[in-house]
Amino acid sequence: MTEKKLVHGGNVYDAAGRLSTEALDFSANINPLGIPQGVLRAMEESLSQACHYPDPLCRALVGAIARWENVPEGWILCGNGAADLLFRLALAQKPKRALLLAPTFAEYAQALTAVGCQVERFFLSPETGFALTEEFLEALDESLDLVCVCNPNNPTGLAAPKELMERILLRCQQLGIFLLADECFTDFLDAPEEVTLKDSLGNFSNLMILKAFTKLYAIPGIRLGYSISSNEKLLGEMFSCGQPWSVSVPAQAAGIQALKEEEYRCQTKELIPKERAFLSEQLTDLGFRVYLSQANYLFFHSSDTLLDEKLKERKILIRSCQNYPGLEAGYFRIAVKSHEENQRLIEALASLIKERSDSSPQKETKTWRQF
Amino acid sequence: MTEKKLVHGGNVYDAAGRLSTEALDFSANINPLGIPQGVLRAMEESLSQACHYPDPLCRALVGAIARWENVPEGWILCGNGAADLLFRLALAQKPKRALLLAPTFAEYAQALTAVGCQVERFFLSPETGFALTEEFLEALDESLDLVCVCNPNNPTGLAAPKELMERILLRCQQLGIFLLADECFTDFLDAPEEVTLKDSLGNFSNLMILKAFTKLYAIPGIRLGYSISSNEKLLGEMFSCGQPWSVSVPAQAAGIQALKEEEYRCQTKELIPKERAFLSEQLTDLGFRVYLSQANYLFFHSSDTLLDEKLKERKILIRSCQNYPGLEAGYFRIAVKSHEENQRLIEALASLIKERSDSSPQKETKTWRQF
Repeated sequence: MTEKKLVHGGNVYDAAGRLSTEALDFSANINPLGIPQGVLRAMEESLSQACHYPDPLCRALVGAIARWENVPEGWILCGNGAADLLFRLALAQKPKRALLLAPTFAEYAQALTAVGCQVERFFLSPETGFALTEEFLEALDESLDLVCVCNPNNPTGLAAPKELMERILLRCQQLGIFLLADECFTDFLDAPEEVTLKDSLGNFSNLMILKAFTKLYAIPGIRLGYSISSNEKLLGEMFSCGQPWSVSVPAQAAGIQALKEEEYRCQTKELIPKERAFLSEQLTDLGFRVYLSQANYLFFHSSDTLLDEKLKERKILIRSCQNYPGLEAGYFRIAVKSHEENQRLIEALASLIKERSDSSPQKETKTWRQF
Repeated sequence: MTEKKLVHGGNVYDAAGRLSTEALDFSANINPLGIPQGVLRAMEESLSQACHYPDPLCRALVGAIARWENVPEGWILCGNGAADLLFRLALAQKPKRALLLAPTFAEYAQALTAVGCQVERFFLSPETGFALTEEFLEALDESLDLVCVCNPNNPTGLAAPKELMERILLRCQQLGIFLLADECFTDFLDAPEEVTLKDSLGNFSNLMILKAFTKLYAIPGIRLGYSISSNEKLLGEMFSCGQPWSVSVPAQAAGIQALKEEEYRCQTKELIPKERAFLSEQLTDLGFRVYLSQANYLFFHSSDTLLDEKLKERKILIRSCQNYPGLEAGYFRIAVKSHEENQRLIEALASLIKERSDSSPQKETKTWRQF
């Protein structure tokens, strides 16, 4: 199909659609602990019930999420992955003009473009490590209908502090702008409470928080995300702006069980910061410019713009960020994976660098500081 | 959520979202043979791969469907159920004015309304048994962008012959109208080839056929449908008008295996006509006005407009069709289920009628003919 464009990581399939089991996939930001055993069992057990339509209102799941997030059930809408909810939001609101960060997750622009919205971009600067600063406040004006802030941002992994987000939210309210705070990676942070806008939901009907089960529970193949907003009318419109049965039976079962997986979450919170630090240190030692991520992925720059291609030959997938507006060739994103997998990546990179320095005197330079 | 409306059958969940396992559900048109064992196994085995994103292009599944339907792979787009594809079509085409049958499946109007399309209705007449006739040709004009014909129609189960559909398609082409032929129930017909527009796909870029795995393979809880059209540009736009990962890993696995289930399909083709005839005869004997369905569901009229409520008290769900535009209270749809289940329904109806005649002299009248 001529118009089908694939712009994301995680493409672990060959031309015939077969899963390439031998490839080591650093291109998708998935919890390296894999699917929790309890979640796998819950999905298996749910399959025999797939002869029924799923509950359109996802009532059991919504109840569990509401208790978990400590918000009223009416504030929650589940979707076929967070991406489903982005398209529903675009369709329900039909914004005329929206402001996105650059770089950021590609689906905001795709959903907004689908409803004819004019997409503006606020370019984050490599000089400040792509941090969101209060300069962003000045970019907000009444011509905007919607602002999307991914926090921590994807692909950089950098989180904007709650105080700045609260100022952005207030400014949006004053200007009649709706704020979508994409917190899909917040649960990987050491201190999510220093970042999330959840406490503001009750006072701001112009706020929606987007979250996903995909990354934390390693179930991107099942598709499950949710929106939280005190704007129940908008959630109802979003429900009507798509099919009623978008969340499958196994997805609903997976979500209910996932929230019970306390030990898995503890293990994750232990593993990710340790391995992120390991990867960051090793990449820095190898001469890459590494940015300060707080999430389960790392963003770095290499003078070798073909790094992803060379790694692919060694059956390791990393995410080239060249197609993100606001970035040029040489920026890459990798998931934080298990120690053994991270070591394999570092060894492959070391070997590539050695090959390069053997064949040419040019090397990764070490003159920059780590942001 | 104030705006959340549930207008369909198959709501087998209680207020807390728990599956009501004791309810006998005639309200959803699902194959009574249940999920084929092979499909159940394929889904189970696929779950461990749900730690990867699904293949956005569904390549293995598209290959299997293309061989099954005997069309090029480029003519197929898979979705999270057929309903996902309806919303994508509406978003990709943004029709200004569309014509639907009345009564017909509710999701066309919902998808079209979401993109601001004006929905017109062609009212089918109870006098002709709600059959689509060539009068429909006269209702087509250049002001229309889109026409949806559900064939066999839902909720009536009546199929329009291919010859009439071909005349409608040609007239649509002449007038610049896009025709969506929803053939989601065609595979239940005794002779699908006398109904389907598949042979016209190559010559008509204004045609899309919609199909689903949901009903035939009893997997509504998994969500899997597909569009077929030679208009590959449109399919590409539909792909871009929604998230790239809408079809989950277990759904793709289910679809690939389902197409191999030849024996299951044979059993289905044997069971449905026999049980449909049984139900039709019994309902007629009980005094209901039964319409001539060719699909896996039956449409009938009762003078008792509260029939669904009374059956619900006996834990049997049937679909009241009162909320379909073009129908009034007293019209009902039931799925054709297993012989034992069908008998239970008939017994419950007989007992209700007996209660009613015991308490009042008014009865179902037997003065009408069966269409």
